[in-house]
Amino acid sequence: MPKTTPWDVLRVGDKQPTVFPDALVTEEPIEISLDGTPIAVLMRTPGDDEELVAGFAITEGIVLGPAEIERVAPIGDNQGRYELVLAGGVSVDPEQFRRNLFASSSCGVCGKASIDALRVAAPPLPQGPELAADVLLSLPGAMLEAQETFSVTGGLHAAAAFTATGELVVLREDVGRHNAFDKVVGALIGAAWPPHDLVLVVSGRISFEIVQKAAVAGIPVVCGVSAASSLAVELGEELGLTVIGFLRGRGFNVYSGAGRLEA
Amino acid sequence: MPKTTPWDVLRVGDKQPTVFPDALVTEEPIEISLDGTPIAVLMRTPGDDEELVAGFAITEGIVLGPAEIERVAPIGDNQGRYELVLAGGVSVDPEQFRRNLFASSSCGVCGKASIDALRVAAPPLPQGPELAADVLLSLPGAMLEAQETFSVTGGLHAAAAFTATGELVVLREDVGRHNAFDKVVGALIGAAWPPHDLVLVVSGRISFEIVQKAAVAGIPVVCGVSAASSLAVELGEELGLTVIGFLRGRGFNVYSGAGRLEA
Repeated sequence: MPKTTPWDVLRVGDKQPTVFPDALVTEEPIEISLDGTPIAVLMRTPGDDEELVAGFAITEGIVLGPAEIERVAPIGDNQGRYELVLAGGVSVDPEQFRRNLFASSSCGVCGKASIDALRVAAPPLPQGPELAADVLLSLPGAMLEAQETFSVTGGLHAAAAFTATGELVVLREDVGRHNAFDKVVGALIGAAWPPHDLVLVVSGRISFEIVQKAAVAGIPVVCGVSAASSLAVELGEELGLTVIGFLRGRGFNVYSGAGRLEA
Repeated sequence: MPKTTPWDVLRVGDKQPTVFPDALVTEEPIEISLDGTPIAVLMRTPGDDEELVAGFAITEGIVLGPAEIERVAPIGDNQGRYELVLAGGVSVDPEQFRRNLFASSSCGVCGKASIDALRVAAPPLPQGPELAADVLLSLPGAMLEAQETFSVTGGLHAAAAFTATGELVVLREDVGRHNAFDKVVGALIGAAWPPHDLVLVVSGRISFEIVQKAAVAGIPVVCGVSAASSLAVELGEELGLTVIGFLRGRGFNVYSGAGRLEA
């Protein structure tokens, strides 16, 4: 599977909006098994998979070093599934290391399966707001103005909810990007629920998990100041959620859900 | 608990190295319980904890919406432990949502406990290399030159291992920062094991988990081009691991393990 995924992007900026062929970084799940038991699912960029599994086994303390790994073996037709085969005499309790198995399913692990699982779990998305380009372009600046801690430490992710007219509803910062997002959702409960007409802006990259969280919460628009991954955009397309990236300067890229943009 | 943590930092740059008082973004674990069963530990910046727990419950699909949450209640003396109390009649299987419980312990959850647990788990760190400032300053440029996919997609994290003389040993890119790190460790198995004299450089922020992974793998020096969190630096200090941040332009910040720098 290639490390980048081709995708047609709507570029909005100084000129007339145009569709151009872009390349997204590929994001796909990998499932790691031990003694035949799946212990972890990671969202990763394909390539060097055996190294990832071996390195993960070492840095997570599953093995004490390379000598305890016999080999990393693909499972079945290798749709991103690998078995960590331990050296003779080495014994580890798989239960101790189980984590993030949300994407696991009997049909194997792949981005398609992750999206299918979520389509069942997430409620149908609302129609959502109509989006004006000039309002969208104003959001990163409004966000930066409202950030408290970043200017001191330079070490925080931020997420913010805005109305479609560009008013800030709530902003939260956290060392973890998912936490900042979840704090915004938690704050919206008392302030603006359901969040069906809001726009969420995140300071970091847009990953599958961010779009997943937005969809489950019923938020129809997610914007980021940098890139979006392939699986994030594919999920947005599947659910009709608007994913906008590289929102900075005088333009932005629309990856999915372009129908919400004002004509 | 405050959102920033004061820390004395050694600044190396154009002038004579000097120690100055800095502020790090605070990173501390939070434990979320359901029906008295811990289901998740997240590394977060303290503040708005109830919102984080409520938002997490919604975006992870633990509840279908705010109406299913009765309240979020601190547990005991509230050292970062919260119970998600569901509304009457709502029933959820805690087992289905268990994840990332690595930091859980009977003495409660706090950064100190996380560090203690790791001090037991990680092997003693090697003495490691002697670090020259001009070599360190050359690493981000060398890394960027070696990156393949970033220039196409703008969407990748990178991690790279260098010798103390600045030679690139291996570089890997991934949509996930931990994956990039693990891929490097996996690649080092065949190329340079044990990695006791190497310097690891990461493109993103330095979090507790990155320092944890380095320590467990026996890598004594971790550098980043941007900020480091409080818990990452505290762990570095505790283990004698060198943590360097804001490595860019003509200087860098040494947060821990300054003894490895050439006089």
